[in-house]
Amino acid sequence: MGRVTERRRVLRIRDGAVTTRPDTLVAEEPLEIRLNGKPLAITMRTPGDDFALAAGFLVSEGVLGTAEELANIVYCAGATDEGGGNTYNIVDVRLAPDVPVPDITLERNVYTTSSCGLCGKASLDAVRTTARWAIEDRADAPVRLEPKVLSLLPDRLRAAQRVFERTGGLHAAALFTADGELLDVREDVGRHNAVDKLVGRALQQGTLPLRESVLMVSGRASFELAQKAVMAGIPVLAAVSAPSSLAVDLAAETGLTLVGFLRGSSMNVYAGEHRLALRTTAGRA
Amino acid sequence: MGRVTERRRVLRIRDGAVTTRPDTLVAEEPLEIRLNGKPLAITMRTPGDDFALAAGFLVSEGVLGTAEELANIVYCAGATDEGGGNTYNIVDVRLAPDVPVPDITLERNVYTTSSCGLCGKASLDAVRTTARWAIEDRADAPVRLEPKVLSLLPDRLRAAQRVFERTGGLHAAALFTADGELLDVREDVGRHNAVDKLVGRALQQGTLPLRESVLMVSGRASFELAQKAVMAGIPVLAAVSAPSSLAVDLAAETGLTLVGFLRGSSMNVYAGEHRLALRTTAGRA
Repeated sequence: MGRVTERRRVLRIRDGAVTTRPDTLVAEEPLEIRLNGKPLAITMRTPGDDFALAAGFLVSEGVLGTAEELANIVYCAGATDEGGGNTYNIVDVRLAPDVPVPDITLERNVYTTSSCGLCGKASLDAVRTTARWAIEDRADAPVRLEPKVLSLLPDRLRAAQRVFERTGGLHAAALFTADGELLDVREDVGRHNAVDKLVGRALQQGTLPLRESVLMVSGRASFELAQKAVMAGIPVLAAVSAPSSLAVDLAAETGLTLVGFLRGSSMNVYAGEHRLALRTTAGRA
Repeated sequence: MGRVTERRRVLRIRDGAVTTRPDTLVAEEPLEIRLNGKPLAITMRTPGDDFALAAGFLVSEGVLGTAEELANIVYCAGATDEGGGNTYNIVDVRLAPDVPVPDITLERNVYTTSSCGLCGKASLDAVRTTARWAIEDRADAPVRLEPKVLSLLPDRLRAAQRVFERTGGLHAAALFTADGELLDVREDVGRHNAVDKLVGRALQQGTLPLRESVLMVSGRASFELAQKAVMAGIPVLAAVSAPSSLAVDLAAETGLTLVGFLRGSSMNVYAGEHRLALRTTAGRA
């Protein structure tokens, strides 16, 4: 594979001066995810970690929860380009024999389970009805976050973004311990794909639910990213930029700690503040 | 409607000091787009300009090209919340009687028209086979861009982002003339929605194809955004951040001028450089 980046010629303009040079771009290609042979979704993604992406996508949708429910994942042999080579752009996820295959019109199915026509509440309901685990800290090891540790995460995420350095074109998502130790990082042209790759890896390694992890993302915290955190049992989502209203609502409903605008020693906490070690008044011990 | 923003309580941490205050967040809710009564897609969007969003989405998919092909767009009356009020989250687009209704499984249909299994080429083929117009400048008024004018666009885009100022949470897309005059700007929690809203407005106003416009986006230039520019006949796409490989390939194939990393007097031109007024060597007239 190794198609994470591609080279193209670029014309650079700097203060009126024009030069040409080769440039490194982030690769983007479609990936079709099939479930037991039936097409389920197409996503534009950066090639690599495709099996993890497919597995994580199915965790986010509530189809997979443990490695045992997954029989295997393969690239479709029949998906060839004009030269006869495999495109490596279609993956088929096969569930273990005893796992029920969900209705293939997944999105429709999820949203129409709600009582209302279609609204933010429908989106929240869909997560609640498909979630495998509640977000709950281990009684013997509740997640407790020091703001000073959170402050370190953006720089650590950036330092771990190897492809971003060369292309400037990738979103990143990383898992950290509550002590700020980097567990895993993924980069992708789509931010939801980067999170799916992290979660899919965790499924494959048998570490779901990720009860003691902090998910840090390079951009904003949309509903979709909060949903993926909840579906993986992750108790803390931290973002460099702003959350949306529906992401905050989902966090408040599920007990997810949601931190936004995490920049240096400054941050906003939108939900789940009980996990933060706070001094109620500045200056008091 | 006026649900572009919502208020939530937030805990602010600044250098260890903790305060609480109300915060303004960008609103995010699902929108279901129906075509002649049949569900076609669900997108998470910022409420507002929903009819334009639906129309622009259908331009991007090759279903709509002129205002005459559109009979009307309505909010579904039956889509009510628990209090009986309309959720305003389901819109039905009705085509004019003589317009063929495409296969409802649009995404599948588009991608399987390609000769290869599934690859970047399939994505490029899909745009070529569904595009209503080639990107071509008017013979009497070819688009000609001064780099100095392009340099002004990021600040003008930011200045026009009214909701971003309050929430920090929105992507923006704007149409400019080649002289740098702002024609229209839209903001949304999803960058593809912001572009669809611009294009849908243009359809409604009868100004498609947008042969003399520059599309400026606040983030990166993915394949999907380049596709939307091409489908609307827009000759220039400029982005603050990096393009992907497939966006560059689509631009090169269709004649789209693609500018990335547009920051101050510095920019990269990835395709369609013939529209830029360049001095071949710095300092020469």
